[in-house]
Amino acid sequence: MRPNIYLFGDSITEESFDIGGWGASLANHFARTVDVVLRGYSGYNTRWALKVLDRIFPEKPDDDDSESEPIAVTVFFGANDACLQDRCSGFQHVPLHEYKHNLHSIVSFFKKRWPDTHVLLITPPPIDEDARLRFPYVENKQGLPERTNEAAGHYARACTDIAGECGVPVIDLWTKMQHCPEWKKEYLSDGLHLSQSGNQLVFQEVIRKLRDEGLSVEALPVDLPLISDIDPNDPMKVFQ
Amino acid sequence: MRPNIYLFGDSITEESFDIGGWGASLANHFARTVDVVLRGYSGYNTRWALKVLDRIFPEKPDDDDSESEPIAVTVFFGANDACLQDRCSGFQHVPLHEYKHNLHSIVSFFKKRWPDTHVLLITPPPIDEDARLRFPYVENKQGLPERTNEAAGHYARACTDIAGECGVPVIDLWTKMQHCPEWKKEYLSDGLHLSQSGNQLVFQEVIRKLRDEGLSVEALPVDLPLISDIDPNDPMKVFQ
Repeated sequence: MRPNIYLFGDSITEESFDIGGWGASLANHFARTVDVVLRGYSGYNTRWALKVLDRIFPEKPDDDDSESEPIAVTVFFGANDACLQDRCSGFQHVPLHEYKHNLHSIVSFFKKRWPDTHVLLITPPPIDEDARLRFPYVENKQGLPERTNEAAGHYARACTDIAGECGVPVIDLWTKMQHCPEWKKEYLSDGLHLSQSGNQLVFQEVIRKLRDEGLSVEALPVDLPLISDIDPNDPMKVFQ
Repeated sequence: MRPNIYLFGDSITEESFDIGGWGASLANHFARTVDVVLRGYSGYNTRWALKVLDRIFPEKPDDDDSESEPIAVTVFFGANDACLQDRCSGFQHVPLHEYKHNLHSIVSFFKKRWPDTHVLLITPPPIDEDARLRFPYVENKQGLPERTNEAAGHYARACTDIAGECGVPVIDLWTKMQHCPEWKKEYLSDGLHLSQSGNQLVFQEVIRKLRDEGLSVEALPVDLPLISDIDPNDPMKVFQ
C-alpha cells in the first residue's frame, strides 16, 4: 500500500488542486510513490479546525491494524485567524495567543496519533491590502481591508515559534514571499490566495522540506515496475 | 470517511495531476466530497495491468470491515495495447482480441470486488501520426509511427463494445475528440498524450458521466460545514 501525505488547512489548501496548484503538483510529483490526500476547509481557522480534528482524522479501533501512519502532514492555518476582529470578516478572527495554543494542540494531536509522521507547518502568506479591497469576499461597509500584512506577520511568526517549540519543520511563507519585490503581483491572486507562481513556490518549498526529512521520490518505494525497468524482450518477467 | 474515486490507467492517467490535468481537476471539483486516488502506470497495457490488479487493489480480510467501496473507478487503457506489433514500441502491443478479454476481466474484477461501484471505461484517444514521429519515446529506426490512428480506433471500438457487454458507461474519447477539426493541435501534446484542452475535455466528460450515474458534488455529502453554512454571529454552533 502506498503511504499518504495529508494536506490539512484552509482555502489555500482546499484550492490547491486547481490549475497549477501546489497540492496537484505534489500529487503529480509523487504520482507513483505517495497518495496526496486533500483535507482543506475554506474559511476555517485553528479554533474550528481543532474542534473537528478527530472527525477529520478519526482513530481506528485498537484491533484494526489496517491504518498505516501517513508519512507527512502539512498544517497550513493562520490566514483566517489573522482576520482583524473589528473588520468585516471578524467572525473568523482568533486571538494570537489562542492561535499559538491551537496550533500547538494540532501538532501534538498528530504527534500522539502518528509518532513517526513528519508534521510540516506552513505560515500564512503575506497580505496585499489594496488587493483585499478590490476582491472582497463579504460586504465591506467600512472600506478597510479585513486582513493586514502586519497582522498576518504576527501569526506567521507565532507559527514559526510553535514549530520551534514542537521541533517540527516550518515554511515561513510570509517572509519568503516578501523576498521578491513583486510579491503582491507575482505570488497572490486576490491579495490573499496564491497565483500559479505562488502555488509553485509552495510546492517547491514543500518538496524541499520533505527532502530534508528524508522523504523524496528517489528514497520512496515505487508502486510497481517503471516502464524503464521492463525488459522489451521479456516484458512479463518483471511481473512474476 | 470520504468515498474514493480511483483513476486506473496508463500514462494518460499517471500524468493526470500535471498542470491542468483531468485528475487534478476532478480532485479540485470534488475537493470537499471525494478523495480522487491516482493509480496510473505509464506504459502499461491491459496484459500487465491484469497481472498486477490484485496487488494494486488488494482484498482486505473478511473480518476487516474498514474498507469501503469506492464510488467509482475510471479504467483508461488501450493506448499502449494499440502499439503496432512490428514497430518500435511493439513490446507494449496486445492483440485486439486479448485486449477485449483483458478489459472484460478488469471490469469483472471490480464488479465482483465492489458490486456498487460505478466502473467507467475510457477509450484510447486518437493518434496524430505525424506528431508521433516528431516526439519519439524510444529509438525509431524504421521512421514509421509506433501507433496509428486507425489501430487506436479499433481498440476504441473494442472498448465501447466491452462497455456494452458489461453494462457500464464509456467515454468514447477517440470519436469525441475527432469531432473537432483541429483535434490534433487542440487536444494532443505529442500525438498521443493530452494537451491542457484535451485534459479538460476528459475532465468534463468524466464529471458528466458520473453525474449520469447520480454522482455529483450536489448529491454527495460535504465533509464538514461549508463557510457559507457557518453563522457569523455564532460560528461554533454548527460544530456542536
